[in-house]
This record gives sequence, structure tokens and C-alpha cells, in this order.
Amino acid sequence: MRPKIYLFGDSITEESFCSGGWGSSLAHHFSRTLDVVLRGYSGYNTRWALKVMERVLPAESGGGGGAPLAVTVFFGANDACLPDRCSGFQHVPLHEYKQNLHSIVSFLKNQWPTTLILLMTPPPIDEEGRLKHPYVENAAGLPERTNEAAGAYAKACIEVAGERGIPVIDLWTKMQKFPNWQKVYLSDGLHLTPTGNRVVFEELVAKLRENSMSLEKLPVDLPLISEIDTKDPLKAFEK
Amino acid sequence: MRPKIYLFGDSITEESFCSGGWGSSLAHHFSRTLDVVLRGYSGYNTRWALKVMERVLPAESGGGGGAPLAVTVFFGANDACLPDRCSGFQHVPLHEYKQNLHSIVSFLKNQWPTTLILLMTPPPIDEEGRLKHPYVENAAGLPERTNEAAGAYAKACIEVAGERGIPVIDLWTKMQKFPNWQKVYLSDGLHLTPTGNRVVFEELVAKLRENSMSLEKLPVDLPLISEIDTKDPLKAFEK
Repeated sequence: MRPKIYLFGDSITEESFCSGGWGSSLAHHFSRTLDVVLRGYSGYNTRWALKVMERVLPAESGGGGGAPLAVTVFFGANDACLPDRCSGFQHVPLHEYKQNLHSIVSFLKNQWPTTLILLMTPPPIDEEGRLKHPYVENAAGLPERTNEAAGAYAKACIEVAGERGIPVIDLWTKMQKFPNWQKVYLSDGLHLTPTGNRVVFEELVAKLRENSMSLEKLPVDLPLISEIDTKDPLKAFEK
Repeated sequence: MRPKIYLFGDSITEESFCSGGWGSSLAHHFSRTLDVVLRGYSGYNTRWALKVMERVLPAESGGGGGAPLAVTVFFGANDACLPDRCSGFQHVPLHEYKQNLHSIVSFLKNQWPTTLILLMTPPPIDEEGRLKHPYVENAAGLPERTNEAAGAYAKACIEVAGERGIPVIDLWTKMQKFPNWQKVYLSDGLHLTPTGNRVVFEELVAKLRENSMSLEKLPVDLPLISEIDTKDPLKAFEK
């Protein structure tokens, strides 16, 4: 049985298998070594994630009775919706978001003590993009998400990682270092362009590598064509 | 547990999670309904596939003790290598290819009687492309694969499907109906361009739909954001 990586998160995870998406890029990168399992739920926040987590990641889903190699936990973009604006029903207060992330980590650590838990902060928000591409009627003409709020949730996510001694990918900070990040990385002020997906993929591959999960270290599933003796191909399959 | 679809095949399957690949497109299409599991092995033919099949698709890998919903079996492009040319070690004679496909189908039917087995023929070959992009030293200057040979293996694959009463996607015929298929669908005379990947994806979605596997018929994993009551979001998670 191949080891698994679960991608658990909101729409930025659910859409990660689109063309050039970070999830499909990860599956392609590890095409002979790992199974990348998609568990993205558009619109979900950490409060809803906690309600469904036991069903999404039951103990036996680790594969072959074991634990998955890693789980990415990628929530916050919806928690950070402003409470008094058009997507207020998705809002989760900052202190509760932090507590919920702790609970998600505790659940995973308890169920699968050896699994790498990898937190991911929400990406930055382009407020102009959010006004141009509203998901619901937005009569007030104010963005339902702001970059400042996303930054506060990103900071809380990083704190949780620090408190639990687990890795985190700080997309909020990382992405804003690049000129014109608002349009280069974000398609609608929130979701990722192919270039934005590429950043997530590269950060994730680097973070997995830091934790000994790389193409060099993971066993390959069955002989590679380059290892097959052209004079006696079947020899490779005798083991 | 979500139902699974296994993609079992050669490099055209192994590379199916590249950007715009048919595997990742399938995973994206069914992002809340099915797990698409990649089992592609570059360079493999049906003879090698038979040697590893029990390890690739063990009975318990169906998920939750059950059977996967479907398995795509996509071999033939390597079997059809000409025996006296530079990739001759991958060649499998036509009659053995047919027999091997029968054995693969028998193994799957025996292990998972309810699983949809979906055969896929090799795509057509652009011999000019093969000469331009050799994988190994090709001193003879003759293509290691020809379209005529690929067609004979495609025909055998279709015959097996008919003899077993299972569906087949005839990529060899389908692709050649389009003008300039040699360059539009094939990147190196054998592997697929994003447009070629799109054809495979669309054919596969149509064939799955004919067998009652569609977004309309498959249950969605957890409430969609559109089903959540904005006045009382948690109600959706009480069930």
C-alpha cells in the first residue's frame, strides 16, 4: 500500500485539482510514491470542519491500517469573513479560530501520532478583486473579506503551529512579497491563479522535504522503466 | 468512505495528473464525490502489468472493505512497440496482448464482481513525432512505434471488451477523426497534449455517465455551501 497525504481544507483545497492546481501538481510530483487524497470543502470554516472531521478522516482511512504520512490543514479564508458583511455566516471569531485549529491538531495527533500535520495560513486578500467578483449579492459595496483580517487569522495560524511544534506555510506573508501579487496570484481576490497554485505547490514540496518526504527518500512503487534490464525485463518483477 | 476509481495503465496514465491531465481533470470533476487513485507505470506493457497486478490492486484496496466503483485499464501503447526496433524489449505479441487483457479483466472481475472495468485503447501514433522525440538511441532512424501497429492493438482491445461485455473507449479511432490530430493531440507522437488529455477526460466522463456514475447520481460528501442555511449554518451538520 502506498502512503497517503490528505489535503483537508476549504475551497482553496477543493479546487486544488484544477488545471495547474497545487493538489494535482503534488499528485503528479509523487505519481509513483504517494497517494494524494482530496478532502476540500468549499465555504467551510474551522467550526464546520470540527463538526465533520471524524467523518472526513476516520481512523481507518490512513490506509492499510496505518496512518497517513501527512495531512495539510488549510482553513482560515472563510473564518476571516467580516461578521457584518455579506458572507458573515461563514465568520468565526479569531480566538475561536485559534482554538478550533488547536482542536483539529489534537484530533489528528491523537488519532495518528506519527502523521505530519502541516498548517497552511489563508492567502492574502485583494479587496478590489473581491468587489469585482462577488459570490453573493453585495449591496453594501464593501468587500466581505479584507487583507488585514486575513493577516490576523494567518498570524493566529502561525501561533498555533508554534505552540504545537508543527510546521506551517505562511502563504499570507510569502505571497505579498511578490510585485502585483493581487493579480498574479489571485484570480478573484481570494482563489488562486495557476501561478498562485504553483507557489503553494513549491512551498509544500519544500516543507515536505524538510520533513524527509521527498522523491529521493520515499520508496518508489514497483520498478522504474530505467531499472528494467532490456535483455531480461521480467527479472525485475521476480522479487 | 468515498467510492474510488483506480486508473491502471502505462505512462499515459502515470502522467495523467500533469497540468490539464485527464486524471487530474477527473479528480477535479468528482472533487466531492469520488477518489481518483493513480496507478500508472511508465513503460509497462500487459505482460508486466499481469506480474504486478495483485500488488497494485490488492483486494482490500477497494476502500472500506468494499470494491472500487471503477477501474480503467489502459495498456497497449508499449505492447505495440515493434519487436525489431529500438524499444523492442517492451513489445508483446498481439495474441498475447489480447490474452493478457482477458487475464487482467478476469482478475478484476473475480476480485471485485461489482466494479466497472473500463478498457481504453492505445491512442494513435504520429511516426514523425516519434522520430523527432526518441526516448532511447535510435540509430536505425525508423520509428519504434507505428500507427498501423497501434491500430491492431486497439482493435484487439475492442474485441476483448466485446467478448467480456464491458465498455471500451476507442481513442485510436476517436482521435484520428480530428484534423491535424498528430500535433493537436500528441506532444511527441505518443503522449498527450493538454487537448489530447481533454479528449480522454471527456470520453471517460461520458462513459462513466452511461454507467450511472455522474455528478447527478453520486452522493456528495458532506453538505454543499449552497445547502447551508445562512441563518443557522450548524443545522446542516446535525444529521
